[in-house]
Amino acid sequence: MELKEKIAKLDGAEGGGQGSPRRKSGAKKGVRQPKKDKSGGAGRKTAPSVRTENKPQRGGESRSKKRLRVIPLGGLDEIGKNMTVIEYGDDMIIIDCGLAFPDADMLGVDHVIPDFTYVVKNRKKIRGIFVTHGHEDHIGSLPYFLKEINVPIYANRLTIGLIRRKLSEHRLDKQSILMECEPGDVVERGCFSVEFIKVNHSIADSTAFAVKTPVGTIVHTGDFKIDTTPIRGRMIDLARFGELGKQGVLLLMSDSTNAERPGMALSERKVGVAIENIFARAQEKRILIATFSSNIHRVQQIIRTAVRYGRKVAVSGRSMEQVVTVAHELGYLDYPKGTIVPIEKANKIPKNRLVIITTGSQGEPMSALYRMAFSDHRVVSISSDDLVVISASPIPGNEKLVSAVVNELERLGAEVVADSLAGVHVSGHACQEELKLILGLVKPRYFMPVHGEFRHLLAHKKLALETGISEDNIFINQIGGVLSLTRTTARLDGTVPSGQILVDGGGIGEVGNIVLRDRHLLAEDGMVIVVAAVSAKQRRVVSGPDIISRGFIYMRENEELINGAKAVVSNALRANIEREVFDWSTLKAEVRDSISRYIGSKTRRSPVIIPIIMEV
Amino acid sequence: MELKEKIAKLDGAEGGGQGSPRRKSGAKKGVRQPKKDKSGGAGRKTAPSVRTENKPQRGGESRSKKRLRVIPLGGLDEIGKNMTVIEYGDDMIIIDCGLAFPDADMLGVDHVIPDFTYVVKNRKKIRGIFVTHGHEDHIGSLPYFLKEINVPIYANRLTIGLIRRKLSEHRLDKQSILMECEPGDVVERGCFSVEFIKVNHSIADSTAFAVKTPVGTIVHTGDFKIDTTPIRGRMIDLARFGELGKQGVLLLMSDSTNAERPGMALSERKVGVAIENIFARAQEKRILIATFSSNIHRVQQIIRTAVRYGRKVAVSGRSMEQVVTVAHELGYLDYPKGTIVPIEKANKIPKNRLVIITTGSQGEPMSALYRMAFSDHRVVSISSDDLVVISASPIPGNEKLVSAVVNELERLGAEVVADSLAGVHVSGHACQEELKLILGLVKPRYFMPVHGEFRHLLAHKKLALETGISEDNIFINQIGGVLSLTRTTARLDGTVPSGQILVDGGGIGEVGNIVLRDRHLLAEDGMVIVVAAVSAKQRRVVSGPDIISRGFIYMRENEELINGAKAVVSNALRANIEREVFDWSTLKAEVRDSISRYIGSKTRRSPVIIPIIMEV
Repeated sequence: MELKEKIAKLDGAEGGGQGSPRRKSGAKKGVRQPKKDKSGGAGRKTAPSVRTENKPQRGGESRSKKRLRVIPLGGLDEIGKNMTVIEYGDDMIIIDCGLAFPDADMLGVDHVIPDFTYVVKNRKKIRGIFVTHGHEDHIGSLPYFLKEINVPIYANRLTIGLIRRKLSEHRLDKQSILMECEPGDVVERGCFSVEFIKVNHSIADSTAFAVKTPVGTIVHTGDFKIDTTPIRGRMIDLARFGELGKQGVLLLMSDSTNAERPGMALSERKVGVAIENIFARAQEKRILIATFSSNIHRVQQIIRTAVRYGRKVAVSGRSMEQVVTVAHELGYLDYPKGTIVPIEKANKIPKNRLVIITTGSQGEPMSALYRMAFSDHRVVSISSDDLVVISASPIPGNEKLVSAVVNELERLGAEVVADSLAGVHVSGHACQEELKLILGLVKPRYFMPVHGEFRHLLAHKKLALETGISEDNIFINQIGGVLSLTRTTARLDGTVPSGQILVDGGGIGEVGNIVLRDRHLLAEDGMVIVVAAVSAKQRRVVSGPDIISRGFIYMRENEELINGAKAVVSNALRANIEREVFDWSTLKAEVRDSISRYIGSKTRRSPVIIPIIMEV
Repeated sequence: MELKEKIAKLDGAEGGGQGSPRRKSGAKKGVRQPKKDKSGGAGRKTAPSVRTENKPQRGGESRSKKRLRVIPLGGLDEIGKNMTVIEYGDDMIIIDCGLAFPDADMLGVDHVIPDFTYVVKNRKKIRGIFVTHGHEDHIGSLPYFLKEINVPIYANRLTIGLIRRKLSEHRLDKQSILMECEPGDVVERGCFSVEFIKVNHSIADSTAFAVKTPVGTIVHTGDFKIDTTPIRGRMIDLARFGELGKQGVLLLMSDSTNAERPGMALSERKVGVAIENIFARAQEKRILIATFSSNIHRVQQIIRTAVRYGRKVAVSGRSMEQVVTVAHELGYLDYPKGTIVPIEKANKIPKNRLVIITTGSQGEPMSALYRMAFSDHRVVSISSDDLVVISASPIPGNEKLVSAVVNELERLGAEVVADSLAGVHVSGHACQEELKLILGLVKPRYFMPVHGEFRHLLAHKKLALETGISEDNIFINQIGGVLSLTRTTARLDGTVPSGQILVDGGGIGEVGNIVLRDRHLLAEDGMVIVVAAVSAKQRRVVSGPDIISRGFIYMRENEELINGAKAVVSNALRANIEREVFDWSTLKAEVRDSISRYIGSKTRRSPVIIPIIMEV
C-alpha cells in the first residue's frame, strides 16, 4: 500500500495511483503490455504497472469478517444516472457515473445527479471509476464527481474520447486521469481486478465488467444487446460470459431496460436496410435523418449509404457535429474525403445529391430538426422536396414533442418517416430472450437486476426465475441499498445515504424541495405582491397599498379586481393599526389572508401572496 | 320567421325556439311523433313542431349569392375541443362544443376552450347545437358557451344525461334547453335538417349527423368506429351512410384520429374476452380494473363478468361513481340488485369475491388508482392479493404517469396487467380500413378530414385519394378556416376569428400570453424582490435594501450570495442618487440590471427580478 499511496500523491489523485490495464491472460491470448492512450488529448496519463500485491485468488482471502458490499447509487427505480459502488475492506471501485434528465415536475432543473455523500465520505478508499460506455446516463455526472474527488477513470477508447470532451467543457480535462482500455484488458485496483468484456449497444465501444473480488466474481453487463451482425467490430463476447459462468460467478448485475419486451432486439444492420430502401425510392428528394448523435454506427450506415448513392453529407446540430468530429478523429467513422460538407454550404448542393444528418430526434425545442420544422433554421428550409427520417423512438415523455415536429414538417410539405414499423430504429437494449441467454451463460449464484424502473426490475426477476435461479438468490434493490456478500451468502443489509441532487445552472447549491415547491406554486397561479408603507407612530398608512403581480392576471384588463384587492388590503391594514396592540407579523398575516380570500372568491385562483409592509 | 322568434322569446332561447326531433321519413319507417325527454331531469323542455317554412328541397334554393359555409372552430391541428359551425344565410348550427386539456407548457391552466367570438357575433343566427356524444372533447365547453348564448342542444339520451350533469355543476341546468333524440330522428332548424345516424364509439349513444342544407347534404361522422359485435345496441348504421351516398353527398367530414393506423379497430367485445380470461385465472385474488368512466360498455362487460364469477362490484373515483349512477338510471347499465356495493364496504367482502372498478387509468395524480398505488386511498390497500388491470392506453403525454402508478402497484406486490398486448383495451376510433369504408359508402363530392393533428388529417387525405376522390376536392383546413360551398363548387375562403382560450379557475378573464410567459419565467428560476426606501430630498437610502425570494435558492444556506446582492444594489442605488439628475425609472432599471448580472454570474440562473423602490 505504501508505494501506491506515494504514487497517488504524485498524480494528485485521491484514490491511489492509477493501475494500468493489462491484457487478460486467457488460454488463447498471450499476456500483453498495457495499451496506452494514443489520442493525444489533454489529460492523457499512463503509468507503469505498480501494484505489488498478489492478485486475489479464489478462496485465498483471509478469514476476516470483511464482506463485499455492492451499492447502487442510481439506476434503480429509474432510467438514468447509473452508478454502482463495489466495496471490500479499504477498497472501493465505482461503475459508471451518469446523470438523469429532469421529470416534467422538476421545474427549471437542468439535470439530476446521484447523491455522492457516501463515496465522498469514503474518498480515501476509491481506486477508480470504470465506465461502461459514453452515454450521458453513464458519464454525465463525472464532472460533478471529479470536482469533489479526482480518481482515475477507466474506459474504452471512444468512451474516453467522449468523457474528455465533456471534462474539457467543465475545464477539468487537464487534471483528470483518463485510462484507455480495450476488450480483454484487466485492470487491478486495490483488491479488485476488473476485466473489460465486449458487448453490443447503441453506441460503439460498450463494455461489460467482470470484477474479481476476494469473495468471488461479479459480472456487470452495463447497457447491452446481442447483435450478431454489428456494424463495426465484433459481436458481444458471449464466449467470455460463458467461460466466467463455468468458473463460477457470485453475482450478476444486468440491464433491465427492455425486460418487459419479448423476443430479441433487432440488429442495427436492419436499420441500414430500411435506410437503403428509403434512399432507393427517394432519388429526387433531399434526405434528412434525425438520430441520436451518439449512435456512431447508425451515422456510419447513413454516410455509407449516402456515398453509395452519390450524395454529400452535411451535419447539423452541435452535439452531432461534435460527435462526428470526435468519432472521425478516433477512427470510428470512415468516409471518403469530401463526403462531409459544412452545413453552411448545404444549399449550394442539388437537393437530390445531399443528405443532412441532424439532432432533434426527440423533438427537443431548439434542436436542429425542431428549428427546421418551425422554419427557424439558419440554413435549411423544408419543402416538398424533402424526405425526413426520424431514426429513433420517442423516449417516454417526449411523444408530444416529436409529434409536434412531425406535424410542422408535414405542413411544410415534407414526407416524414417516423413510424416504428418503418424499421428505421432498433433498440440498443437486450429483450427477454437475450437477457435469459446472459443469465443462462453466466449462471450466477446471486442476481440483482439493475438499470430500470421497478416494473423492469421485477420483469427481469421473473426471467431469472425462469432460468432456474431461486427466489431467495434474487435481490430487487433500491438506490442506497447495500447488498452484502460472502462467498456463499448474500443479503440486503441496510442503506447508505443516497438520492437525487437537482442541478440548476452552475456553481452554487442544489435546488431543494422548498425551492421546487415554490416554483410549482408560482407556475400554477403566479404571484401577487402587496406593498404599503405604514407609520406606527402616526397610526396610518402613509403610502400604498400598491399591487404588483406576475403570472397571475393581466392587470390592465382587470382594474376592478385590482382596485377591490387594494380596498381589502386597506381595510385590513387600518383595522390592525387601530388596534391597541400593534404587531407586525399579525399585520402581515392578516394582509395575506384577506387578499388571498378576496382573490380566491373572485377568480378561484391561489397566487403566491407576498406582503411587503414597510415602517416609516 | 315571426312565429319562430316569438317562440324563441317565450323559451328564453336566443337562437329561436327549439325544433323537436321527428322520425326520419324513410322508405321503411313511418313518420313518428317527436320523442320527448323522459328522464325527468331539470331543464327538460319539449315543444311542438312549430316550423312553418318549407323543408328545403334539393335544387329548390333561390338563386341567391348565398353560399354554405363550414367552419371548424376546434378539433383541427389538435386532438380536442371539437366544434364545427355550419352556416347558410341567416341560419347557423353548431356540431359539438368540446374542450381540450392543457399542454404541459400551459402552466396552471385547467382547460382550453375554443374562441367563440365568431358565433357570439352571430348569436341571432344560431338555431341549435348538435352533439355527437358525451366525451369532454365534445361537450366540455358547453357551460362556457351557454353562459354567453342560450340555444337548444340536441343529442342522444346518454349524451343529454351527461350534459345535464355537467350543466348542473355550473348551475346552468335549469335554464338550458336539452332535446333528447335517437338514431333516425331528423331535426329541422332554420334551413337545415339534421339526421341522427347510429355509430359505434367508446361511449354509448354516439351519433353521426347528416345535415341537409340548401346546397346539398353534409355528413359529419363525429368520433366513430365500426363495431360489428357491439356490447349493447346495434352496429353503426352503414346502410344509412350508403343510402346517403347513393342520393349524393356534397361534403364529408370524418374522424382522423387513427388515420395513421392500418387495419380495423378491434371490437369492444374482444376486451370482454380478455377480461374473462383474467377472471378465470385470478380466482383467488381481488381484481381491480381502471378504465375511462365514460366507457359504459366496458363497465357493463366487467360487471357482467363479475356477476358470472360470483363477485360483488365496488366503484371508486368520483367520475366513475357518477357515470355508473347516471348510466344505470338511464338504463345503460344492467346488473342484478345487490351487485354493486359501496366502496366503504369493500373491505368487508372476501378479496376473491370482489371487483373494484376505478378511475385513474391515465395515472392522473389524485385519481382513485393513483391513491391506491401510493397507499393514500381511504379504503383500498393494495397487496399481493390484488390483480390490477389498466384497461386503457396512455394518452400521449401520460406515459410516465401511468408507468409511475404501475411501479408503485407492483412494489406493493400487486400483479399488474397494463400491456397493450394483453387485449384489455381497444381503440374507439376507426382505423384506415374503416375510414376507407366510410369514404367508399358516402362517396362525397368534397372531403374535409377533421378531428386530428395535421399528420392525421394528411394521412386521412391520402386514404381519400386512394378511394378515388380527386386532390382538388379534398380540403385540409385549419380552425377558423371557412370552407365555402355551392352545389358544385367548394373552396377555402378566408378565415373567421378563432383560437384557444385558456381557462384557469373560474369566472374572471382568460390567461393570456403575458401571464403564461411570466409563469414560465417564474417556474424556471423563481424570483427575487429587492425592496428599498429612498429619500430623494436627503439623497440617501433610508431603508433596505432587503431581498425576498421565492423558488430561486434556499436563502438560509446562501447568505453570502444574498449579502453580495444587497451590496450590489446598495452601490447601484447610491451611484444613482448621487447623480445630478434623479430619475426613478432609471434607478429601477439599474437596480434590476445590476442584481441580475450579479446573480447570473454567481449562479447561472435568471430569476424574475422585481425592484420595489419607495420614496419617503
